[in-house]
Amino acid sequence: MLQCGVIGATGYAGSALVSLLAAHPKVEITYLASHSYAGKRFSDIYPSLKGACDLVLQEEDVQEASKLCSVLFLALPHGLASSKITEEILSRCIIIDLGADYRLKDSSVYESWYKTEHGSKSLLEQSVYGLCELHRDAIVNANLIANPGCYTTCSILTLAPLLAEGLVDPTSLIIDSASGVSGAGRSEKIDSLFCECNESYKAYGVTNHRHTPEIEQELSLILGSDVLVQFTPHLVPMNRGILSTCYANLKAGVSEADIESAYHKHYGNEPCIRLMGSSLPETRFVRGTNICAIGWKFDARTRRVIAIGSIDNLIKGAAGQAVQNMNIRCNFEETLGLPLFVSNPL
Amino acid sequence: MLQCGVIGATGYAGSALVSLLAAHPKVEITYLASHSYAGKRFSDIYPSLKGACDLVLQEEDVQEASKLCSVLFLALPHGLASSKITEEILSRCIIIDLGADYRLKDSSVYESWYKTEHGSKSLLEQSVYGLCELHRDAIVNANLIANPGCYTTCSILTLAPLLAEGLVDPTSLIIDSASGVSGAGRSEKIDSLFCECNESYKAYGVTNHRHTPEIEQELSLILGSDVLVQFTPHLVPMNRGILSTCYANLKAGVSEADIESAYHKHYGNEPCIRLMGSSLPETRFVRGTNICAIGWKFDARTRRVIAIGSIDNLIKGAAGQAVQNMNIRCNFEETLGLPLFVSNPL
Amino acid sequence: MLQCGVIGATGYAGSALVSLLAAHPKVEITYLASHSYAGKRFSDIYPSLKGACDLVLQEEDVQEASKLCSVLFLALPHGLASSKITEEILSRCIIIDLGADYRLKDSSVYESWYKTEHGSKSLLEQSVYGLCELHRDAIVNANLIANPGCYTTCSILTLAPLLAEGLVDPTSLIIDSASGVSGAGRSEKIDSLFCECNESYKAYGVTNHRHTPEIEQELSLILGSDVLVQFTPHLVPMNRGILSTCYANLKAGVSEADIESAYHKHYGNEPCIRLMGSSLPETRFVRGTNICAIGWKFDARTRRVIAIGSIDNLIKGAAGQAVQNMNIRCNFEETLGLPLFVSNPL
Amino acid sequence: MLQCGVIGATGYAGSALVSLLAAHPKVEITYLASHSYAGKRFSDIYPSLKGACDLVLQEEDVQEASKLCSVLFLALPHGLASSKITEEILSRCIIIDLGADYRLKDSSVYESWYKTEHGSKSLLEQSVYGLCELHRDAIVNANLIANPGCYTTCSILTLAPLLAEGLVDPTSLIIDSASGVSGAGRSEKIDSLFCECNESYKAYGVTNHRHTPEIEQELSLILGSDVLVQFTPHLVPMNRGILSTCYANLKAGVSEADIESAYHKHYGNEPCIRLMGSSLPETRFVRGTNICAIGWKFDARTRRVIAIGSIDNLIKGAAGQAVQNMNIRCNFEETLGLPLFVSNPL
Repeated sequence: MLQCGVIGATGYAGSALVSLLAAHPKVEITYLASHSYAGKRFSDIYPSLKGACDLVLQEEDVQEASKLCSVLFLALPHGLASSKITEEILSRCIIIDLGADYRLKDSSVYESWYKTEHGSKSLLEQSVYGLCELHRDAIVNANLIANPGCYTTCSILTLAPLLAEGLVDPTSLIIDSASGVSGAGRSEKIDSLFCECNESYKAYGVTNHRHTPEIEQELSLILGSDVLVQFTPHLVPMNRGILSTCYANLKAGVSEADIESAYHKHYGNEPCIRLMGSSLPETRFVRGTNICAIGWKFDARTRRVIAIGSIDNLIKGAAGQAVQNMNIRCNFEETLGLPLFVSNPL
Repeated sequence: MLQCGVIGATGYAGSALVSLLAAHPKVEITYLASHSYAGKRFSDIYPSLKGACDLVLQEEDVQEASKLCSVLFLALPHGLASSKITEEILSRCIIIDLGADYRLKDSSVYESWYKTEHGSKSLLEQSVYGLCELHRDAIVNANLIANPGCYTTCSILTLAPLLAEGLVDPTSLIIDSASGVSGAGRSEKIDSLFCECNESYKAYGVTNHRHTPEIEQELSLILGSDVLVQFTPHLVPMNRGILSTCYANLKAGVSEADIESAYHKHYGNEPCIRLMGSSLPETRFVRGTNICAIGWKFDARTRRVIAIGSIDNLIKGAAGQAVQNMNIRCNFEETLGLPLFVSNPL
Repeated sequence: MLQCGVIGATGYAGSALVSLLAAHPKVEITYLASHSYAGKRFSDIYPSLKGACDLVLQEEDVQEASKLCSVLFLALPHGLASSKITEEILSRCIIIDLGADYRLKDSSVYESWYKTEHGSKSLLEQSVYGLCELHRDAIVNANLIANPGCYTTCSILTLAPLLAEGLVDPTSLIIDSASGVSGAGRSEKIDSLFCECNESYKAYGVTNHRHTPEIEQELSLILGSDVLVQFTPHLVPMNRGILSTCYANLKAGVSEADIESAYHKHYGNEPCIRLMGSSLPETRFVRGTNICAIGWKFDARTRRVIAIGSIDNLIKGAAGQAVQNMNIRCNFEETLGLPLFVSNPL
Repeated sequence: MLQCGVIGATGYAGSALVSLLAAHPKVEITYLASHSYAGKRFSDIYPSLKGACDLVLQEEDVQEASKLCSVLFLALPHGLASSKITEEILSRCIIIDLGADYRLKDSSVYESWYKTEHGSKSLLEQSVYGLCELHRDAIVNANLIANPGCYTTCSILTLAPLLAEGLVDPTSLIIDSASGVSGAGRSEKIDSLFCECNESYKAYGVTNHRHTPEIEQELSLILGSDVLVQFTPHLVPMNRGILSTCYANLKAGVSEADIESAYHKHYGNEPCIRLMGSSLPETRFVRGTNICAIGWKFDARTRRVIAIGSIDNLIKGAAGQAVQNMNIRCNFEETLGLPLFVSNPL
């Protein structure tokens, strides 16, 4: 059994990860840490997992943890991981970081969007951006895997084939996304109170959301030149789910069939992508699963494509993709322990 | 007291209208009709209005109704109003139609998007598009007022100043909207069931929603030449509210101050528009009111403006604007009987 | 105009109160205080009331406030009001306290359930329990009005006629209630986060909720001897509303008609009570209103009556009843400025 | 592999069952029928199960189905199953009926509560009430298993140990329950529309809900004499979940320890029951699982016990218990293929 640990185990992403690891047939959880609940059992905080995981939560200690685990998952606020990970830790333990610290390869971009200094710039070169469908080959050998953000996973996967095949004008990309409230995490904020979110819909982070440079980094890699995107997230009164509605101007001559071909070429064999064509995804169709569902519409009238992707922000957008990364890295079957189907309504 | 009637009184828009009219200080409701509930009292269907409106619902009969009312509101599925309204009816009764039949001035556009023949093309010339802030002068003398759609009201009001002042590239307009479920009406459809909508978010009507030509008609009028827009509605699990996130490429040289000036120039004195600048609207801030709240962000990085408007789809997007039209037409104070403020959370 | 102030103006009950007072035709708001937001404008915190109330929030100072207001409303955590109100303050200012401090006439009961010492026991004798329908005569002359709790208002009004008319066994009373989340207030608690409340239903405060002694005090007064009740609150994933399902064993010989008579005798002329008979209330029917709707079922099989009451916890359960108390105390029409009807869905 | 079929496969209970069977390691689905969608693929209706179950739906034909399946599940409106099941069918196929037809052993009670004639009274004697924890021994040999109702499963399991151990007065039982909206099924009813359920809470079926006689039958069996219960269901704006708050007067001398002992004695080894003691269940803790979570409070003040049970109405309350019955009947491990844990928030 692979010995695994989670630091930040009682947040929403962390606890979703514990839940997946506890049911994973090749994993043994040997370490869980939580700053807020150290000393309590995990199942005291999450009683619905009583019997599945009753470990006592430790104070967060990356050094200690790296000695107890072969794979250590970090689910921490940005800035913390980069101040704690060292070459020495990486020499004995695979780190899968669910936070933002190792996602942006250019530390000046990180520092400009996150308004904080990066604590371990020298490690950025060896970190691998853990968007499994795009970087599978590099993940196999990585000891530092930067698990992508939720909006970014959904948006990049939705747009990648269109850019890779040169079907759209890269200056025209607009990504209008919406997320359930669990994306805001389990912290005591007025803005996350039930009565502040329920029965309302709003945009936030307009023009300056931190997932923007992450999307741009990856789409630029695919295109081979710099891409700017317009990214606007919204908050939806539901627990889970992200939907990204992506707009792009079609290049001259591009047909509906070209679009369909692009998606099937890139994703036809992907176990965690469900192509829906013109029957579009809804967030409920992927709730609780590690699937990214993608549909699209060709608009002959406006000469645009509207591509729509959807994921569960806590699974394919966080904990599930982290497990998928572990599976790839450890040569397990890629979807082992990952739910792929959901019964509606859930 | 002005004698008013409503045909289609038990749908969501119709009943919201009855509720406003029942509380309006210059109105007496003299006629209510409902195909589904003829013979019952209005308050049997809406017990929360018992004592406010207990009229018996009639079978729908526009002829009869037009003899009992000075102003008759129609809240009917498209196609019905245009088959029933005649010059004779308009000679004795002001018609405010909440449906789509008289909104599009070009009947061929109507017939192409609605896939049905228009029943009274000869009346289109005299109908006035009842978007109060844009057509106030014409509404004063109109006997046939086409109350705008919900998405259209929100989207047109949000974009109008930018086009009127020539600040944006009219080929770049993308309107990404979201609505609460009451927009789908009170009919027995699987898609409107609680368990089909709750805890999910989806796009629908992508590339072909019928509010598209209505938006294009009005924005073209403002611009002075034809405009195509990309309009994508989404469904949010909440009862009420629309938010439109509108994207436009800025023309060279346009500054943040130009945008602010445009909104203040056009809407500075509008009683039903609340300008929020860079503190963006949320649907809960306008719930139950006749307000359209508008905010915007200038993106120097991408040279775009993101303008965001929000309304209550049943009030400013339907019943409230219908009353606002009545107030203008009948020389009442424009906001008489219209709620403008809301206490959160509601 | 009556000069009014609110201390604790930015909580949910406080802000609902500001919203009602701002629209009240005989009131001028002269003072608002908020510990958390002193120095900001009220409408900075509640942008949907911009233009309705833009006063700057003061630090909470009951002494100062009592000089600026004829009626001062307190919406504070328990324990604070009783430490600040004095005879001197009451000599120049009517106090309507939305908190718990002056509701229980027996300070030892207060201290036992609230685990804190009462700060002004000498004032308890002159305080009046402001459940308007039961204590209207005393309210007219009171300078210290203890506005009842939300669950208590609903539960007492629902059961009072049955006890007053001697129809039920007073040892058999079980009150099973449920409330929307706004009842928990606007404080930063994990338990009130969207994702902790949404899509779930739970009981809380079982056997020991603090509204229990308040219900017992009032029902005992009506009966003329001590009553114990079983009271169990639940949390419902919605913003507003309380519904109390009350069970009582019928005394021998009591008929369905006796029950109906009791309700009509006691409430037939009450402007804020809507009797619904066997068509039972739902919380949406009273949302945003100052109405308590009451229905009931006679169960011949089990010889019980199930009486069901419903209110909006922030209106009839807090802010609205406070205004109703003010109206009674100041000889205004009792429902002046109070919404009594709602259009569904809101 | 066990060949299984489902008739009524596209309703909420039916589709939840298909989802469980599709993932069950010892089951092969060989037949699915749906009156509404015959001819379509199951995954056309439930796209989130595309790849998990793509069978074509048949017209409902119990005869035909019984030839293709070793176990046939029926998820039909009441009255249908009893008109179609025969001795001959039972001779070749195990029937697990999720409907009401074979639950009540006394056909006159059935006919009185359901207002319809029973179609196969002669089969009632051999039918077994499939509440697994109570009737495991009989289920092992049954060919006709009546899967219990959702409210009944929750209520009976919560109260059974208290009655079995003689701790409570059987004339005092009050069951106050609440359910998510999926309990109303997937049919086109105004009452089940999003905007009619959302943001509201109501009681329904007060004094006459059809699950009452089912609860009484089973509790009477346990007690050894007739029991009447007061059962009141409520509707909660959430997809899934039932919580039953059960009140009972304690017999003289019964202590808190007696209650705890009773629950541990009866359920200490039950794999699908989670005893929570005084930390009470919430519906989210069992969402998506086959668990019945039970907690309780001893009220020394009122001499009552309040016992609270919670299940997922579609799993332990329908599809999951049906699979549990199949597992018992077919000598599989009892929880095979049944989810027992959930990660919150889901």
